[in-house]
Amino acid sequence: MSVAVIPFRPVDPKTRLSGLLSQVEREAFARAMLADVIGAVRSAGFEPLLLSTSPYDCPGVEVRVEPCGLSDALNDLLPTLVGPVLVIMADLPLVTPDAVRRLANTDADVAIAPGRGGGTNALFIRDPSRFHVDYYECSIRKHLTIAREAGLSAECVDSFCLYLDLDEEEDLVDLLIHGTGRARACLEELGVELAVTRGRVGIGRRTPLHDARSAVRTTGPTGAAGR
Amino acid sequence: MSVAVIPFRPVDPKTRLSGLLSQVEREAFARAMLADVIGAVRSAGFEPLLLSTSPYDCPGVEVRVEPCGLSDALNDLLPTLVGPVLVIMADLPLVTPDAVRRLANTDADVAIAPGRGGGTNALFIRDPSRFHVDYYECSIRKHLTIAREAGLSAECVDSFCLYLDLDEEEDLVDLLIHGTGRARACLEELGVELAVTRGRVGIGRRTPLHDARSAVRTTGPTGAAGR
Repeated sequence: MSVAVIPFRPVDPKTRLSGLLSQVEREAFARAMLADVIGAVRSAGFEPLLLSTSPYDCPGVEVRVEPCGLSDALNDLLPTLVGPVLVIMADLPLVTPDAVRRLANTDADVAIAPGRGGGTNALFIRDPSRFHVDYYECSIRKHLTIAREAGLSAECVDSFCLYLDLDEEEDLVDLLIHGTGRARACLEELGVELAVTRGRVGIGRRTPLHDARSAVRTTGPTGAAGR
Repeated sequence: MSVAVIPFRPVDPKTRLSGLLSQVEREAFARAMLADVIGAVRSAGFEPLLLSTSPYDCPGVEVRVEPCGLSDALNDLLPTLVGPVLVIMADLPLVTPDAVRRLANTDADVAIAPGRGGGTNALFIRDPSRFHVDYYECSIRKHLTIAREAGLSAECVDSFCLYLDLDEEEDLVDLLIHGTGRARACLEELGVELAVTRGRVGIGRRTPLHDARSAVRTTGPTGAAGR
């Protein structure tokens, strides 16, 4: 069975959501998103392997702790793996087994699912001994170049479910609209919900932050037009 | 041949890009995006029909002028059309013929391509006499409800190319990275380019606004992480 490597930061993740969620809540939310990703890759026929920045217990899943940077950790790991490998981020809560299968079933040597702003949200690498990763700063361009220089064919896969990573408060809008998994349920348990104000869809919070830094709030400028 | 209705605003469009582009430039950019959409729907086998808010000359394309609101204009038009109809927004510059074909080739009576924040960027309606549209304020939920109440099956299509509509400056980042058509070329002619600052990918402008309101600028908070 092919391996799906999932980089994961269990401690103090998603700091750009700090205005809405406490650290404890952000950690619970990250675990819920991870559970969605693990479920989807398993359903698509992959064996998950967690690459965690700190010790983390994930029942039934192999966990390797690598505190070094994302690219270095993956480039140490990839050459040790045999056969096709999927590398998929842990913050893609809309991911579906179908989207993973589409990524894995192109004819290309390397298939890439873009994230916002030039990010690489998922990579399917047919022969991991011939490819290395280089994340951040428009990594999709770097990954296309790395493939070309290695003589590998590369293809970008057209998937909104793999495109939507959760970084900013406005990203939560699409999760609340389209999500059906654990991450969406987690947000609802935390009292985070859609709020339509002057025709724009944003998010609000019914319950205060657990650490009581602030009470109910509604995001303004992060709202999306929602045509 | 099936019709692809494309709502279009030729005068003063995309006002949220006013900080970067003058009105003349925004109008040129809107025309370039429209050309990309017309090309994609034609390649996918549809005959474009422009629904314009004001008179507009588009060689080789039928244009109907409807100054009333988006939903009203479409709901007047849809019952007059025969056979499957595609309704697709004019500001989807990454659209590909493949993405349009995927939308048109589901088994559902109504297939929907979501946009950011609950928007509906494209709709494929098998029988337009049995469906009506209701845009704005999380329209995707309304369209799913309208289909259900009409006894029609509905499906959301997983496409990043149809998800990316161009409203905010940060949306331009993905166009500059992934675009290959007229809209991307238009931006480049206007001197709009990617700018990587502190690991974040934003946009900058080499040339000043035509109306000289401001000179070269780089977006800050709208930049995306670009993992």
